[in-house]
Amino acid sequence: MRPSGRAPDQMRAITIQPGYTVHAEGSVLIGFGDTKVLVTASVEERVPPFLRGKGQGWITAEYGMLPRATHTRGNREAAKGKQSGRTQEIQRLIGRSLRSVCDMGLLGERQITLDCDVIQADGGTRTASISGAWVALRIAVDKLLAAGILLQDPIRAQVAAVSCGIYEGTPVLDLDYIEDSNAHADGNFVLLSDGNIAEAQATAEGATYDEEALLRLLRLARIGCGEIFAAQRQAVGK
Amino acid sequence: MRPSGRAPDQMRAITIQPGYTVHAEGSVLIGFGDTKVLVTASVEERVPPFLRGKGQGWITAEYGMLPRATHTRGNREAAKGKQSGRTQEIQRLIGRSLRSVCDMGLLGERQITLDCDVIQADGGTRTASISGAWVALRIAVDKLLAAGILLQDPIRAQVAAVSCGIYEGTPVLDLDYIEDSNAHADGNFVLLSDGNIAEAQATAEGATYDEEALLRLLRLARIGCGEIFAAQRQAVGK
Amino acid sequence: MRPSGRAPDQMRAITIQPGYTVHAEGSVLIGFGDTKVLVTASVEERVPPFLRGKGQGWITAEYGMLPRATHTRGNREAAKGKQSGRTQEIQRLIGRSLRSVCDMGLLGERQITLDCDVIQADGGTRTASISGAWVALRIAVDKLLAAGILLQDPIRAQVAAVSCGIYEGTPVLDLDYIEDSNAHADGNFVLLSDGNIAEAQATAEGATYDEEALLRLLRLARIGCGEIFAAQRQAVGK
Amino acid sequence: MRPSGRAPDQMRAITIQPGYTVHAEGSVLIGFGDTKVLVTASVEERVPPFLRGKGQGWITAEYGMLPRATHTRGNREAAKGKQSGRTQEIQRLIGRSLRSVCDMGLLGERQITLDCDVIQADGGTRTASISGAWVALRIAVDKLLAAGILLQDPIRAQVAAVSCGIYEGTPVLDLDYIEDSNAHADGNFVLLSDGNIAEAQATAEGATYDEEALLRLLRLARIGCGEIFAAQRQAVGK
Amino acid sequence: MRPSGRAPDQMRAITIQPGYTVHAEGSVLIGFGDTKVLVTASVEERVPPFLRGKGQGWITAEYGMLPRATHTRGNREAAKGKQSGRTQEIQRLIGRSLRSVCDMGLLGERQITLDCDVIQADGGTRTASISGAWVALRIAVDKLLAAGILLQDPIRAQVAAVSCGIYEGTPVLDLDYIEDSNAHADGNFVLLSDGNIAEAQATAEGATYDEEALLRLLRLARIGCGEIFAAQRQAVGK
Amino acid sequence: MRPSGRAPDQMRAITIQPGYTVHAEGSVLIGFGDTKVLVTASVEERVPPFLRGKGQGWITAEYGMLPRATHTRGNREAAKGKQSGRTQEIQRLIGRSLRSVCDMGLLGERQITLDCDVIQADGGTRTASISGAWVALRIAVDKLLAAGILLQDPIRAQVAAVSCGIYEGTPVLDLDYIEDSNAHADGNFVLLSDGNIAEAQATAEGATYDEEALLRLLRLARIGCGEIFAAQRQAVGK
Repeated sequence: MRPSGRAPDQMRAITIQPGYTVHAEGSVLIGFGDTKVLVTASVEERVPPFLRGKGQGWITAEYGMLPRATHTRGNREAAKGKQSGRTQEIQRLIGRSLRSVCDMGLLGERQITLDCDVIQADGGTRTASISGAWVALRIAVDKLLAAGILLQDPIRAQVAAVSCGIYEGTPVLDLDYIEDSNAHADGNFVLLSDGNIAEAQATAEGATYDEEALLRLLRLARIGCGEIFAAQRQAVGK
Repeated sequence: MRPSGRAPDQMRAITIQPGYTVHAEGSVLIGFGDTKVLVTASVEERVPPFLRGKGQGWITAEYGMLPRATHTRGNREAAKGKQSGRTQEIQRLIGRSLRSVCDMGLLGERQITLDCDVIQADGGTRTASISGAWVALRIAVDKLLAAGILLQDPIRAQVAAVSCGIYEGTPVLDLDYIEDSNAHADGNFVLLSDGNIAEAQATAEGATYDEEALLRLLRLARIGCGEIFAAQRQAVGK
Repeated sequence: MRPSGRAPDQMRAITIQPGYTVHAEGSVLIGFGDTKVLVTASVEERVPPFLRGKGQGWITAEYGMLPRATHTRGNREAAKGKQSGRTQEIQRLIGRSLRSVCDMGLLGERQITLDCDVIQADGGTRTASISGAWVALRIAVDKLLAAGILLQDPIRAQVAAVSCGIYEGTPVLDLDYIEDSNAHADGNFVLLSDGNIAEAQATAEGATYDEEALLRLLRLARIGCGEIFAAQRQAVGK
Repeated sequence: MRPSGRAPDQMRAITIQPGYTVHAEGSVLIGFGDTKVLVTASVEERVPPFLRGKGQGWITAEYGMLPRATHTRGNREAAKGKQSGRTQEIQRLIGRSLRSVCDMGLLGERQITLDCDVIQADGGTRTASISGAWVALRIAVDKLLAAGILLQDPIRAQVAAVSCGIYEGTPVLDLDYIEDSNAHADGNFVLLSDGNIAEAQATAEGATYDEEALLRLLRLARIGCGEIFAAQRQAVGK
Repeated sequence: MRPSGRAPDQMRAITIQPGYTVHAEGSVLIGFGDTKVLVTASVEERVPPFLRGKGQGWITAEYGMLPRATHTRGNREAAKGKQSGRTQEIQRLIGRSLRSVCDMGLLGERQITLDCDVIQADGGTRTASISGAWVALRIAVDKLLAAGILLQDPIRAQVAAVSCGIYEGTPVLDLDYIEDSNAHADGNFVLLSDGNIAEAQATAEGATYDEEALLRLLRLARIGCGEIFAAQRQAVGK
Repeated sequence: MRPSGRAPDQMRAITIQPGYTVHAEGSVLIGFGDTKVLVTASVEERVPPFLRGKGQGWITAEYGMLPRATHTRGNREAAKGKQSGRTQEIQRLIGRSLRSVCDMGLLGERQITLDCDVIQADGGTRTASISGAWVALRIAVDKLLAAGILLQDPIRAQVAAVSCGIYEGTPVLDLDYIEDSNAHADGNFVLLSDGNIAEAQATAEGATYDEEALLRLLRLARIGCGEIFAAQRQAVGK
């Protein structure tokens, strides 16, 4: 039995509020249950030095957690003077995931930064971030298309992510904080709406796992991402 | 005429959503028009080293702005590795303001940290932070009282803050971003519900000002803080 | 009675030694009693990035305190690897204050940096810094005028600053360290020789204050700054 | 055809020199072809704060790359003043991998730090680090057993890692730098000698991949890790 | 001919003002010509962790240069967030030099920190710092002896330092900035009043030098330090 | 008697493996007994800002020690976020030493960086670094000459370094760790193959020393460097 009473293949409620802030080119407040992440997409007409003059765009991400997003207050990274290894790992993953569905040549020499800030945390902040970032990106790109700045859509597919893990011997979908803290194996899957995989990560915590378990986690991820894809489409009106 | 069409002594809409997040002992989303600040109050049963063993509590504040809270994206302070002088100045002001209405002996050897994170900025983020922080503090202290951890209320009065400035020659209340960027003088007033002043700051930007102007700004601040006090009371149900 | 035996409206001895160092375009050792600050003005033929090509100059300030300027040794900020919030707040105030009396267009595309280093501290280091910085700036600008680099004087007025506070219930002028540590309210006023105000800041420490008290502090500040203006004029031979 | 002429399921030469340095409790120079990593295991009779008094040990890892380990010189992280996100991601992976085969209770309240320093890089530095770290750990633990400090062996299995990827459409084993820079998908698999998986990570670079590809990469990883397990056993004389 | 017109073995004017500041246990403003360094000695009743409980004291030094001590303004180390390699090298040298004349057992478990801050620079700042630091230390230790905190004098000898170098082919004593910038070899000698050497450093800049030159520099240093020893004794009234 | 049984003027075994790594333009693993340092020379076609457009080259050095190069593990400087004063002092010394034998005009506008990374430490790491750096530089410059990029050899002489010190009253050559930790005086001498001196540093540790001792240390250094020069020539085949 899961602490939340959910079935093993049951997602938490997915909530997506597009246009949550007024300044960003794209913005969304995404919720996976009690996990709430604010994602903004900022378009800048410049690219990082390594891409200058190559006719290509870039998508990057930054991730942060408000100090009291969690059960007990964590130290503010800005006050500590550095981002943790966990933060850097997550923001690298978000950036890679979004780049996997975007044609950088069609994007042109501009950069889109996806800021994912966790307002409230209950497990799955990185997967909610990726899933919300796609919506923010979609909104921002739609504006560029509507304004005639882009002539062709650089986004090739939807991308979404969900965590799966083995909790008390059972593979379960979309772990909340209690499950996450006690899971024997914990995976994050970044899937595309065309069925392909952008990223699969499954880590043993305590007990290692076998190939069969890996495949079952992936199957659960397909179920979860299917629901997220639907919620994303509804949020952007497609 | 003000860009927003407001009268000189007219506040923007004040919105206060108490209990905005689930983990913090106190939390609130406060809005002054398009300025939105999430404030959480975290209670910890320890005090900073300089207060240990003195039977006194401490209230401190941290302030941050999400990178895309503003018209154009700013750099993330955690990524830059340090907080700006502006950030530090603001969080010192918030902490002082809240300490001015709280009896540290009655609070006992515990620390309350007020995290003020700007979700969306349109001028007045520091004054909204102070005004919201009082609500978050009030909620957290009420929980300590209800739990019998505190026997006597350490909060002596309400505290609120508002900005005033001289815009195109006219003293105006609660400056939004356009006014703030063009004001000749800009002040922040932190007032108590008993009529006293916790902090008065008025800075010339471009043109200096005279004593009469200082008094008129203070008078506007009294009007604005009166409205905020009412909204605070309504938010905490008193 | 004040610990120093001074009357409530009595400044400490003001000493100004212009030309204290040989390399800087302007320099001064200013003393308010035992508080001694060395201020140098450095002229550089470049402006910060945000002003390039706008035909405007810039005045900025940095502030530091020697580790043993105080009763007990403080940590060296260079060794700690960052400037404190207090340091940053003070250097921002000094820069703003000096900019309030200088026409940036007449200054031309050059930057003047005012380094204020506290050799010995006994309260009022920020106000002595501002008051001394005006002298260093005046000397440096006089050299630019004498050399024909500037054709018109960009300095519109004198600027000086002094602290005032409520000590044992009595508003007093120019607080020394003992008074400062025990004052119920503590203000810093930056005034111009034309009677205007560049900055007024009054902060409650422990007990809040009322409007009448604010005005009495301002009145004391006018007395103190009057004396400083005279000493400044004498120091620059005008 | 692979640039090196290797078959798709062919590892590079695996070389393991145990006891490469004199001071560390365990040390090894491991080579996967031109990739050379020096791993040392340092035993300290203390644990991190979060484990104190719990009767458990800890295994952690740090990773670094000499500035000229690569084709062109990279900046020294110590001189830059921070470790990159990539470095932190890798050292977290190494630590997790080694902890997955060690019983922390049997290890007792002591910490073993695995320092993995890349002397020369040609792809696969993180997988060579993990594979070499097991040997260094084995040597260090054998000394603790021989000295009677440990009475029971806390190491439950061997752990090894290898990278696999899809290069020009073909799944290949143990990518070198040229392959790694051009692979469409790139995975790192951390496997145990008992057949279980400690970590599976597969990332799309450019083109995403399907479930069949993921399984083929895992199958190649099993081949590669089998060879590494044999080399590890030979190195430690078992 | 030296730019200053001095003879090769001629020091600049040595000026020593003891008791330059009021708070420090010992303080001095030392000048070697236009080079002016403020040195304070701070006594603290604690020692660094590595000495705790060993019945020994410690002497350490910190060094800083005010941003406009030099011909053109340098960046403030506190603002840059780190001390340069040059600064660290100099403060290590000052600390070692003073420790060489002090019996750490007689000093007892207390630390004396010598802060050397360059007010104005014209070559020889590190040697003036060492020479001045001895005076500040002497004053501070005399106070400890007078107060009965120390019963026996821990200072065994005087220590002084001077720079020598080969300027246009001629060995010269006490280089000023112009000479220092153009010297072919540049040495710093830290000598004791008993004739012994605490530190000898001679560095080729451009042209290397031979053993004969090293000895001639050392001989010049003896002449210079003789004069400094006399000035030190006069400053402390012995 | 020396702990190692060596005669006072006896070096440890000098081992030099040129071409230790494949990517660097020059590389060497140098050993002085158990002290092992990997030095690489990296050639870059750019110079630091202060030399741009002056037709001159630059040679610089960086130094690091692997965390477990020593008897007990030290903290990784990259993890601490800054290089120690000792590290900076050593890398400045290495850079100066190598520049003393190279004609910067003949080198042309390019920079050679010498990375000296201590694999294993047993005293004398800075002197082994300098001695090895010459070999790496020689190899790199020979490649530039062979490729016709340089037409004339910028290297004027060999440079080598060795430590000497007074151990239990006797001047000894090439101190190992035990001797170094207990020496009363400790010197590092950087000598040229033409007999000249690039750098002489001798520091009292505990007991100061006299001129005669300084000369005896220098004489030992000549013996040691003679052996190193021979080993360098053999390593580069000259």
